[in-house]
Amino acid sequence: MGTPHFTRRGAVGSGVAAWTSLLTQSAAAAETAPEDFLKALRAALGADAVLTGDAITQRYLARRQTERPLAVALPKSTAEVSAVLKLCHAAKQPVVPQGGMTGLVDGAVGRPGEIILSTDRMTEIADFDADNRTLTAGAGVRLQALQEYANERGFLMPVDIGSRATATIGGMAATNAGGLQVVRYGMMREAVLGIEVVLADGTVVSSMNRMIKNNAGPDVKQVFIGSEGTLGIVTRAVLRLRPKPAGMATAYVAIDRFENVLKLLRLFEAQLAGALTSFEIMWDDYDAFVRKYCPHLPPPLKAGHKFYLLIEADGGDPASDRARFDKAFAAAKAQNLIAEFAIARDAEERAAYWAIREQAGAQFIELGPFFGYDVSMPISDMERYGLRVKKELSAAFPKSTTLVMGHIGDGNLHLIVAPGGRSPEITRKANEIVYGAVRALGGSVSAEHGVGTLKKEYLAWSRTPEEIALMRTFKRALDPAGILNPGKVL
Amino acid sequence: MGTPHFTRRGAVGSGVAAWTSLLTQSAAAAETAPEDFLKALRAALGADAVLTGDAITQRYLARRQTERPLAVALPKSTAEVSAVLKLCHAAKQPVVPQGGMTGLVDGAVGRPGEIILSTDRMTEIADFDADNRTLTAGAGVRLQALQEYANERGFLMPVDIGSRATATIGGMAATNAGGLQVVRYGMMREAVLGIEVVLADGTVVSSMNRMIKNNAGPDVKQVFIGSEGTLGIVTRAVLRLRPKPAGMATAYVAIDRFENVLKLLRLFEAQLAGALTSFEIMWDDYDAFVRKYCPHLPPPLKAGHKFYLLIEADGGDPASDRARFDKAFAAAKAQNLIAEFAIARDAEERAAYWAIREQAGAQFIELGPFFGYDVSMPISDMERYGLRVKKELSAAFPKSTTLVMGHIGDGNLHLIVAPGGRSPEITRKANEIVYGAVRALGGSVSAEHGVGTLKKEYLAWSRTPEEIALMRTFKRALDPAGILNPGKVL
Repeated sequence: MGTPHFTRRGAVGSGVAAWTSLLTQSAAAAETAPEDFLKALRAALGADAVLTGDAITQRYLARRQTERPLAVALPKSTAEVSAVLKLCHAAKQPVVPQGGMTGLVDGAVGRPGEIILSTDRMTEIADFDADNRTLTAGAGVRLQALQEYANERGFLMPVDIGSRATATIGGMAATNAGGLQVVRYGMMREAVLGIEVVLADGTVVSSMNRMIKNNAGPDVKQVFIGSEGTLGIVTRAVLRLRPKPAGMATAYVAIDRFENVLKLLRLFEAQLAGALTSFEIMWDDYDAFVRKYCPHLPPPLKAGHKFYLLIEADGGDPASDRARFDKAFAAAKAQNLIAEFAIARDAEERAAYWAIREQAGAQFIELGPFFGYDVSMPISDMERYGLRVKKELSAAFPKSTTLVMGHIGDGNLHLIVAPGGRSPEITRKANEIVYGAVRALGGSVSAEHGVGTLKKEYLAWSRTPEEIALMRTFKRALDPAGILNPGKVL
Repeated sequence: MGTPHFTRRGAVGSGVAAWTSLLTQSAAAAETAPEDFLKALRAALGADAVLTGDAITQRYLARRQTERPLAVALPKSTAEVSAVLKLCHAAKQPVVPQGGMTGLVDGAVGRPGEIILSTDRMTEIADFDADNRTLTAGAGVRLQALQEYANERGFLMPVDIGSRATATIGGMAATNAGGLQVVRYGMMREAVLGIEVVLADGTVVSSMNRMIKNNAGPDVKQVFIGSEGTLGIVTRAVLRLRPKPAGMATAYVAIDRFENVLKLLRLFEAQLAGALTSFEIMWDDYDAFVRKYCPHLPPPLKAGHKFYLLIEADGGDPASDRARFDKAFAAAKAQNLIAEFAIARDAEERAAYWAIREQAGAQFIELGPFFGYDVSMPISDMERYGLRVKKELSAAFPKSTTLVMGHIGDGNLHLIVAPGGRSPEITRKANEIVYGAVRALGGSVSAEHGVGTLKKEYLAWSRTPEEIALMRTFKRALDPAGILNPGKVL
């Protein structure tokens, strides 16, 4: 309870990503000789802003990626992004927008022949406005830098994700990032009031709205949020800040029956009114994994319960916030919803609770090669979903391990599946089991990570043919030559 | 404080709308003889579902509209909407989607030669799901019916607008309605998890997502929310419900300096955490109008203050909610932010406070012909905005009266301007003053009412040429023949 560092939950990195897609030449083909194109690019940006060959460090590549893209362009401004795209458009040169490379679906990977447009040099934070609770961030601003900037000024950046140290605002807007506080503050779509994008042909669309309400025509920026760089490149965003909480209340809870998880969520949503910020779940398998492989992350409750929850609420009045939190727990106890619980006594305990949820990922590799999944479905179907997936995975891969956790407050589960080996066939089979069960429930194969390269094949399992046809319509209308992040999403 | 009827604030109707645009033949021209088209329409829907001539009652017409559209079609299902649009598409027949006709920008007016597609018969509420807090509503479901449906089941429909008795869910989704609780719950965009739309050619796009998070590809439904029926016709929506508050705390506040309004907003947002639901303002001119023309609406505070606020918070624990509300007021008093305040002691007082904000509109006509405006801008600019507009209006129309109020918590003002006469020149001059000042501040000519017919001319005052070009791109891509709500928005 109560800490000045509530914008940072702990160390970073889910370690879930794996570079499994095959490197192939870009589907779109450039019409200008590479040397001529690079010459024009250097003329436009300056030689130091165009990296090629060995100068393209691992920072711009996916894990295990060895073949390099044609170049990395490092524009410093929207005008320079526009200049790059005009060149690309004229040359039919495929271009891949890239932020912090924290995505988990290979959505920003540049293949041989493609150029990467990195927002690394677009890191300005400007126009901070305390009265209107807004600021403007360049696409390359890191989330954590922005959180700290807002925090120092008495405000909260409402979206928080595990990869805060490296994730960029542009990438988060382009992928509609979600994370740890969606229950209260929503995803990036709710935090982004305005954006500036550059279209495939270099047109700068400035939609830098600063108001909460603006119904002057269809809200064109919505099309770019969640489009993963396939429809335009985000260069700046106007973000909506929230009041900085005066404190947090954080609890670790054990529950033995799934229906009680649902009841507890409803109870807390109602009793804490708008203050509930996180409602995270860890299945018993996850808890067992942590106890076995993460001795540095001791869970605060006994082993052997079926579900563990991490519940957090913020607030503006720590004394009464805590009283209300306690009262909600008293009601939950009276209704026999929970088996055990602990409330963090200080910032250190709070960080320790969050570390169990956020830092165990570094040890997943102990299980062997593994896949990370990110799915959503109606919450009431989740227990059934978990049982079905585990049963089918065990049947297909007798030595497999599956861990389940996630943001259950917003209907989002993450699964770690370690099938006990690695091959394209194993990948396919595991995907079919995990996504097949999602499909049967009308859920989504991507709650928050996007589609990128890795989930393309399964998009139709969560979207109707008419939805996908509309996505193609937008793509054709905005990027007829298909140069923007080709081969991603669709 | 505390009332079971918190979903209904009082009687309905802002009375602000005025049918001022000229009736002209639809810009799009049908290619089939009207009789042949009507025959096909009757064959598709049944004769009783197609109204023509005198059977087209005032319910389907704008105020003061005398010339009737070609027909009103009353489909009962998405399949029937699709059948109508297929016929329209083949015949190049202009079609105007229509909900409850509560809009204020003539966005659903059918002109001679056009047909109206009314959602009046699509009123099913289905798939209520308490665990996942969702339901599905037909486009023709009235907001108040939906609020009552949710309320009876222990939930809240989070969007509330003055015209709740007649506004429809389809119309509210198509226009991204805002209203009285945006501070806490957002606009329709946040409440709509999924929609089903029928495109101009009759294609049914089912995007009936039920999850809070779904990043499986660009979220195509966003394009239709706020498109005012120009890109597709909404037939059903999946709505996200919220927990039903256990009570409300409501206060009427007088403030003498604008900067203290801003400080109070920040104080209440911080202290009440997520529970602040409404933060409404009324300028002194509005208060004076109410005292003079609305003896049945006695304000609870003394006359003569510069600003009056209506502040409301909901919550899950009435006793501690009220204590927190009182504590926030104590802090405001200690900081000398407020001149006077009163907290509603019961549901009746609460309704009386809201009536001042919501029901005075019925008397605006006492001022003579009037215009209602709906604009947004950075909150800190609002005092300056009000002063400038009033000064310019007084100079242009010496006998004019201007009343200012609005949802200041979300940066949205409404102005009532009674210039003292009626003519196209007066309309234009008033528009230019009100919207000109918005333009200078980078605000929006439509915070929540949309563009329709009445604001078309001023769209470019709030949107960049590139934004408007994108709107046209979407229109061309989705409705190449231009049959959907022609002449609206763009």
